[in-house]
Amino acid sequence: MFDFSSELTKNTSEPLYKILYDNMVKEITSGSIRAGEKLPSKRRISYDLGVSMSTVETVYSLLAAEGYIESKPRSGYYACQMMPLEPIDKNFEKNFSPKPEQPSIYKYQFSTSGIDTDIFPYSTWAKLMKDTIYNGRGLLTRGDSFGDRELREALCAFLHEYRGAQAQSDQIIIGSGIQFLLDRLYYLLPYDSAYAFEDPTYLSAYRTLKEKGANVCSIPLDDAGMRSDKLFESKADIAYVTPSHQFPTGVTMPAWRRRELIAWAQEKEGRYIIEDDYDSEFRYSTRPIPCMQGLTGSDRVIYMGTFSRTIASSLRIAYMILPRHLVDIYKERYGYMTCTVSRFEQQALAKFISSGQYGRHLRRAALLYKQRIQLLTSLISDIPRSTIRGAEAGLHFMLTVPSYTENELIARAAEAGIKIHGLSEYYAGDNCPGSTLVLGFAGLDEAALKDACAILKSAWQA
Amino acid sequence: MFDFSSELTKNTSEPLYKILYDNMVKEITSGSIRAGEKLPSKRRISYDLGVSMSTVETVYSLLAAEGYIESKPRSGYYACQMMPLEPIDKNFEKNFSPKPEQPSIYKYQFSTSGIDTDIFPYSTWAKLMKDTIYNGRGLLTRGDSFGDRELREALCAFLHEYRGAQAQSDQIIIGSGIQFLLDRLYYLLPYDSAYAFEDPTYLSAYRTLKEKGANVCSIPLDDAGMRSDKLFESKADIAYVTPSHQFPTGVTMPAWRRRELIAWAQEKEGRYIIEDDYDSEFRYSTRPIPCMQGLTGSDRVIYMGTFSRTIASSLRIAYMILPRHLVDIYKERYGYMTCTVSRFEQQALAKFISSGQYGRHLRRAALLYKQRIQLLTSLISDIPRSTIRGAEAGLHFMLTVPSYTENELIARAAEAGIKIHGLSEYYAGDNCPGSTLVLGFAGLDEAALKDACAILKSAWQA
Repeated sequence: MFDFSSELTKNTSEPLYKILYDNMVKEITSGSIRAGEKLPSKRRISYDLGVSMSTVETVYSLLAAEGYIESKPRSGYYACQMMPLEPIDKNFEKNFSPKPEQPSIYKYQFSTSGIDTDIFPYSTWAKLMKDTIYNGRGLLTRGDSFGDRELREALCAFLHEYRGAQAQSDQIIIGSGIQFLLDRLYYLLPYDSAYAFEDPTYLSAYRTLKEKGANVCSIPLDDAGMRSDKLFESKADIAYVTPSHQFPTGVTMPAWRRRELIAWAQEKEGRYIIEDDYDSEFRYSTRPIPCMQGLTGSDRVIYMGTFSRTIASSLRIAYMILPRHLVDIYKERYGYMTCTVSRFEQQALAKFISSGQYGRHLRRAALLYKQRIQLLTSLISDIPRSTIRGAEAGLHFMLTVPSYTENELIARAAEAGIKIHGLSEYYAGDNCPGSTLVLGFAGLDEAALKDACAILKSAWQA
Repeated sequence: MFDFSSELTKNTSEPLYKILYDNMVKEITSGSIRAGEKLPSKRRISYDLGVSMSTVETVYSLLAAEGYIESKPRSGYYACQMMPLEPIDKNFEKNFSPKPEQPSIYKYQFSTSGIDTDIFPYSTWAKLMKDTIYNGRGLLTRGDSFGDRELREALCAFLHEYRGAQAQSDQIIIGSGIQFLLDRLYYLLPYDSAYAFEDPTYLSAYRTLKEKGANVCSIPLDDAGMRSDKLFESKADIAYVTPSHQFPTGVTMPAWRRRELIAWAQEKEGRYIIEDDYDSEFRYSTRPIPCMQGLTGSDRVIYMGTFSRTIASSLRIAYMILPRHLVDIYKERYGYMTCTVSRFEQQALAKFISSGQYGRHLRRAALLYKQRIQLLTSLISDIPRSTIRGAEAGLHFMLTVPSYTENELIARAAEAGIKIHGLSEYYAGDNCPGSTLVLGFAGLDEAALKDACAILKSAWQA
């Protein structure tokens, strides 16, 4: 029994107590030590194996805490009946061959969903999470299905202050992403509702609804965003808009067009506007326009936002503000379902916002991205005949290079190792302007931008 | 300008630099300092306000980093054009009145979703999260839609070793809760599929599908779980079962009944078993039975599990193993959707599992709950004519006290401050045994259990 002194003298980086622990576990679970059998005294083990008493005591404590052995007073330690959680397959071998990761064939990607990895507040977030978990005794249960109160209140105050939203915290719902919340909305609103999307549009939302079999149509844009005349002509019930910084054209919807759309919604029962407040946080030259949700008569606006672009998309935290009259219906339908965002992260985020750190983070990020877009526009001006639109705000813009077709631009860039999206990718209809690309720049730092633009300039030599 | 020396001398707990910072921000954003106006030198501020140079330097650095002021070399600091992210409502007042929290009217709740708050590995989890975030540069983007590879591989290995699951890591999908994954499944499987639930059953899953308009039916149980004869007779396509420890009856489905159900699934195209491996981790006297997914011919079993009971339900991390032939269909339908679980938590969990800490945590938890159930069963034996069923495993069991009807038992307990669930709550059909309750005990510690049982004994005096 316990003749593994050779194990202990092997040259290994494992701590001694762990080697001893692992070996004793093996002996007990394999049945070499039978249930009920008395173990050698700690002193004996210490002597026989040449390990310190404190190491043996540590190991015996662990084994007892985990139920492998039990202590009988004034008698000693005995091996327990095999613990419930035992490996079913003791000769387990990893029998899977995971698909090898494909290395990217691109040197740079003007991804529309990237963010700058330097700007992420690593140490602040790490500390907030650590403190939240340490003090997390009350956070182990399911929590409010709408999301934790502290987060909804912090968000409510923030959105009021910075976006002019008018809501109470019980109108706010937290969910694990905009796709997720849109899905919830879809089942809340009448099933046969027809959804109008901007054309071009943010594909993820469009697909989410289309794949569910929703009735979707596309409304063209003009310089003020979604055309209200076309919306009135359509049979839509629900209009999905990105008024702060339209994706992908970058148009900011002026106040008068917003009021037109709200008038459309007010015209009939069952009409709503889903306002995706995309990219509202980063404006480089003009003041932000208050969100539609906060405008008079906005009990038909469902406001949606996410922390994907402002903190990180890996966090998966988004929110929506429901009109007051939809709150009870939502609660009835979904009130029994647990909020899909980790409570630890909700609480950490609530503190991040209410302490003012989120606002400060946004200011720093806005400054960084402003410098980035200024650099990028100056680099791009080197590319012959290029024009930029929609760069006054947000983390993407349109670039037109009439010397080539859109496909040629993309192909030449790809050949040179640069991945870019073409505008036509986002069009449902036929009126896509030619030779135009959509560039997301947040994921590329200064050095990368300089290099990438030099490569593009050379790839697009007329 | 900057005449707020009075602010600085107030007796306040705020650090000096913050008071100075806040006041300067106010001056700049209110326009008291106009854009382009030169600020006093740091030395001047330091002298006029009686604060140290290092405090002033800290504040000026912060203001510059956040874009409120800019430094012109050999000239000084100048107020910037107002930053993009400015409060829209400067006279903001919290205009919401959150609903006051209702204090619980119960002293103790035998909640079926509780877990012991002592057992949660606070410091381990806090450390894992902290380290993951600090090293999280690569984790800021969206990640794999099925969930991060490291977590799927760790889970795959763990489930094979401890549950006998047979799968490759690319068959595993991570999602923010079983309700969430069930929803995804519903849209994956043929829309007109008929779902068979155990009767009685786990309500959350039943409701999730019923509310979507799914065709649901209930199959009675016997001592081996869901009756296969009744299942064969039904028109069901999909059977949702909890074979490890049936909720709420506590029955463990023996191997022969499992094979009967698998035979049913194999009989026709489009038939599946959804195996919710609920409560498989905690067994107190018998060895665990390998999951159905791992049995021969199990390409019809969709395996689901969650960390809600073993770590915390506030984490919102669940998983499913899809049969190989459903993987590509799932990818086609959902591949563009981002995984709804925070990548930080996925990575921390992956390490928790692959380092062996999860296994050890489970062993400790199992031992604790074993002691808990032993205490509880001995306390309950004091209650006249009481019988317990289904307490060999898991975190709930059935208690029958024939002296009263189920409603009387619940009412008397409630009057005495104890909340308990009645078995009829989980029945769709009519054959619910009388006088029977379902007790979850994981959320009550020893002292609470002793007190609660004493109260129940007195409330149920015949």
